[in-house]
Amino acid sequence: MDKLVVIGGGAAGMSASSRARKLKPDMEITVFEATKMVSHAPCGIPYFVEGLFNDENLFMTYTPQFFEEKRKINVKINTKVTEVDLDSRIVYAESKDGKIKAEYDYLVISTGSLPKKLSVEDGNDRIFYAHHPANAVELREKLWSLNNIAIIGGGILGVEMAEALTHLGKKVILIHRGKYLLNRTLDQELGNIITQRIMKDAEVRLDERVETIKNGGRLIITDRGKYEVDGTIVAVGVTPNVELVKDKIKLGETGAIKVDEHMRTNYREVYSAGDNTESIHIVTGKPYWVPFAPVANKMGYVAGSNIGGHEMKFPGVVNTQITKYKEFYIGRVGLQEDEAKRYGFKPIAATISGKTRARYYPDAKDIHIKIIADENSKKILGGQIVGGEEVLGRIDMLAAAIMKGFIIEDTFFIEMGYLPAISRVWDPVIVAIRQLMKDE
Amino acid sequence: MDKLVVIGGGAAGMSASSRARKLKPDMEITVFEATKMVSHAPCGIPYFVEGLFNDENLFMTYTPQFFEEKRKINVKINTKVTEVDLDSRIVYAESKDGKIKAEYDYLVISTGSLPKKLSVEDGNDRIFYAHHPANAVELREKLWSLNNIAIIGGGILGVEMAEALTHLGKKVILIHRGKYLLNRTLDQELGNIITQRIMKDAEVRLDERVETIKNGGRLIITDRGKYEVDGTIVAVGVTPNVELVKDKIKLGETGAIKVDEHMRTNYREVYSAGDNTESIHIVTGKPYWVPFAPVANKMGYVAGSNIGGHEMKFPGVVNTQITKYKEFYIGRVGLQEDEAKRYGFKPIAATISGKTRARYYPDAKDIHIKIIADENSKKILGGQIVGGEEVLGRIDMLAAAIMKGFIIEDTFFIEMGYLPAISRVWDPVIVAIRQLMKDE
Ligand SMILES: Cc1cc2nc3c(=O)[nH]c(=O)nc-3n(C[C@H](O)[C@H](O)[C@H](O)COP(=O)(O)OP(=O)(O)OC[C@H]3O[C@@H](n4cnc5c(N)ncnc54)[C@H](O)[C@@H]3O)c2cc1C
Ligand SMILES: Cc1cc2nc3c(=O)[nH]c(=O)nc-3n(C[C@H](O)[C@H](O)[C@H](O)COP(=O)(O)OP(=O)(O)OC[C@H]3O[C@@H](n4cnc5c(N)ncnc54)[C@H](O)[C@@H]3O)c2cc1C
Repeated sequence: MDKLVVIGGGAAGMSASSRARKLKPDMEITVFEATKMVSHAPCGIPYFVEGLFNDENLFMTYTPQFFEEKRKINVKINTKVTEVDLDSRIVYAESKDGKIKAEYDYLVISTGSLPKKLSVEDGNDRIFYAHHPANAVELREKLWSLNNIAIIGGGILGVEMAEALTHLGKKVILIHRGKYLLNRTLDQELGNIITQRIMKDAEVRLDERVETIKNGGRLIITDRGKYEVDGTIVAVGVTPNVELVKDKIKLGETGAIKVDEHMRTNYREVYSAGDNTESIHIVTGKPYWVPFAPVANKMGYVAGSNIGGHEMKFPGVVNTQITKYKEFYIGRVGLQEDEAKRYGFKPIAATISGKTRARYYPDAKDIHIKIIADENSKKILGGQIVGGEEVLGRIDMLAAAIMKGFIIEDTFFIEMGYLPAISRVWDPVIVAIRQLMKDE
Repeated sequence: MDKLVVIGGGAAGMSASSRARKLKPDMEITVFEATKMVSHAPCGIPYFVEGLFNDENLFMTYTPQFFEEKRKINVKINTKVTEVDLDSRIVYAESKDGKIKAEYDYLVISTGSLPKKLSVEDGNDRIFYAHHPANAVELREKLWSLNNIAIIGGGILGVEMAEALTHLGKKVILIHRGKYLLNRTLDQELGNIITQRIMKDAEVRLDERVETIKNGGRLIITDRGKYEVDGTIVAVGVTPNVELVKDKIKLGETGAIKVDEHMRTNYREVYSAGDNTESIHIVTGKPYWVPFAPVANKMGYVAGSNIGGHEMKFPGVVNTQITKYKEFYIGRVGLQEDEAKRYGFKPIAATISGKTRARYYPDAKDIHIKIIADENSKKILGGQIVGGEEVLGRIDMLAAAIMKGFIIEDTFFIEMGYLPAISRVWDPVIVAIRQLMKDE
């Protein structure tokens, strides 16, 4: 009987093991998970902190019991894998009950990512990372007890935590290295809109680098000043968690584990999926790293399919991102304009502002759209949207278009629906696209 | 100097004339419009009746003055074209100031559609059609003065009028020929959901045919009974308005004007665009007729481009439809399951029900999705969605997919975004798609 071992019971790991189980009812499947939670959703942490829900079990799509009973998957929670012997095909793990040794025929590495750290002096009792749901209760208790909180990093996580904390009435200072917030998500035209919005609720410090954090998180020293706060959230990004195997398995140029289309590493029986795994950007054909949940799930699904004997290929990524801040949804897909240049494209772009509903229909929201295309091939390279409603689906539509190489004119002709209550007869996306056709 | 004449100043006509103007600054352009309104939006009529706005001028995107002054287009409102001499290239029109004769080098026919009628006896002072914004004020005044109102026809217009009137507190009886409401938009699984919802607000009579309307609209005789009401809205569909040219120009099998990809009729200098024009369904390659505003606008744009000397081809339609009823948005694209069979496909389908937000995020709405694919080619043939939010964009995404022949697996891999506040980590669309992959 084939044995599958999965390291890490997050989105990717549970997706891989469930899919393999479905295809191979007899396979022996064991998942090792360092924390108490599996199939969990870190994405909910900011909302838990905001107080939108209180039951930490809701972080889990399914419980370990569910996987044990319904899917016959051995789930070893609170059990950390400490070593992998790839040549002998053995995994070594540890729990408070002792050490475990497990042999495998197939291995899935799905250890996720780790938060990047900053230089810290004198303790860290007031330094927080919003990273794993298993720590969410403790994180929330501490944050709720503080008043002046610094967030370092103005990317998606920093902005989501700023939303949560300002909503709670905390005094927030957001210190960001970039010229505007969300600069890895949006180009400046749209990024400025969000930056200005957040400035209404929080003190935003841009273009400022943190040098060190002192007094356990109560003092922040930057290249431009000092800030005294009650505590500090560090949200300066994540890196692939490849600790276990980094000297043994081939990594890609992004630092994540290199895989082929089947999610196979350089060991034929070893797969990798999720935030610890490198991908190929569909637009550039180059290695790229997208640490987001749908990608992790689908990578896991593909790994599980192949292990289960149903061949499947992961097509690569286009870096769809979606977040929100108060009344604004924020989405992007594909390449940013600068990125496009770096990859050798000749980007042309159109940025428009519009409304989400017919002029006569009440409660229309603002919507701002930037579309980037390549002047030579006319292909759509990227899209960014900031708006009050229906941002997600428009981004998803652009994701579909970008994944299949739609040119500007193809996109113009997408038969987007029109209902005065929720769209415009010339959809704002089409208005932006039409601008790109203008010069023709 | 080239002369362009446009018959009908609706979406298609004004789009064509604006585009031609842009490309040919010197062209002499004249638009004849029978009513007082141009670039108007019939789509707003139900919302005007509902009382969501009061200024009838809001029906117009731009006024006739705007087109005259800013775009140098001669707009003859209240002027009806009565005859077209295609061989001599002359259009004859009439207004209260007398007759006009206009020569053309290019002609665009954009006369829209006409509402279908039913058999009527003894007058029609209480029989209403919600068709042209120029009559919206009168329509609303009359409807507001009545209490018991029958709507005949449970398609999109009937449902939108039912929303408006029940919102106003009117007693509504909705008489529909089909087995469930919106049966030309949705298959039964999803159609039933909406039908049951509307039944909470209105008396819904299904599978019932109107034989005649009597007493000026106060008495309706069906194959199953008689209904006494204060007035009757007839919403049993529209037909292409081809009165002017039906004996002179080639019509297609749908009854609308046949055109090539350039929107040219069988007369080289005569173009047709909008609701009076036939198209090709991209999925079937067969003639099809889609009387919706975005299609009309884009057909007009293509006609205007070609007239202006910039070659452009209209790729055909996929029949995207979107409407709403109270808390539900309703969308569809592509072929319905029955339609797919009729066209010789072997449809397989998956229907799922889900939520629009993460399980822990407040105020999630229900969402119901049906996806139809072809068993042989694996191509996506159609999609239908009924849900509380983010229906439009998901339909638009499916429209893009269907237009470019995405197969099931392509669609599975669309990198749809995930934010707990507005989506699910396995997007409901992907859940439905995954079901279609199950048997593989
Ligand atoms: C606060 C926050 C908000 C986010 N919001 C979004 C969002 O809105 N949308 C979105 O798409 N993505 C979001 N993400 C990203 C998303 O959560 C990740 O992409 C996704 O969780 C990746 O899944 P994974 O299975 O690869 O890794 P993880 O979910 O991180 O799971 C990896 C698991 O492996 C375990 N593990 C690691 N090492 C070992 C070991 N040696 N032995 C045993 N177990 C081990 C870990 O304990 C962990 O449970 C967010 C992330 C965070 C932190
Ligand atoms: C109540 C209602 C709600 C709708 N809701 C939606 C919706 O939500 N979404 C959507 O996409 N579509 C909707 N539609 C359909 C949409 O309005 C049409 O597809 C669109 O208006 C078609 O544009 P058109 O230019 O082809 O025709 P029209 O807008 O009908 O314009 C044709 C014009 O030609 C003029 N005309 C006709 N004959 C002559 C003549 N002989 N001489 C001079 N002028 C003439 C007419 O007066 C008219 O102004 C709705 C339609 C109605 C009636």
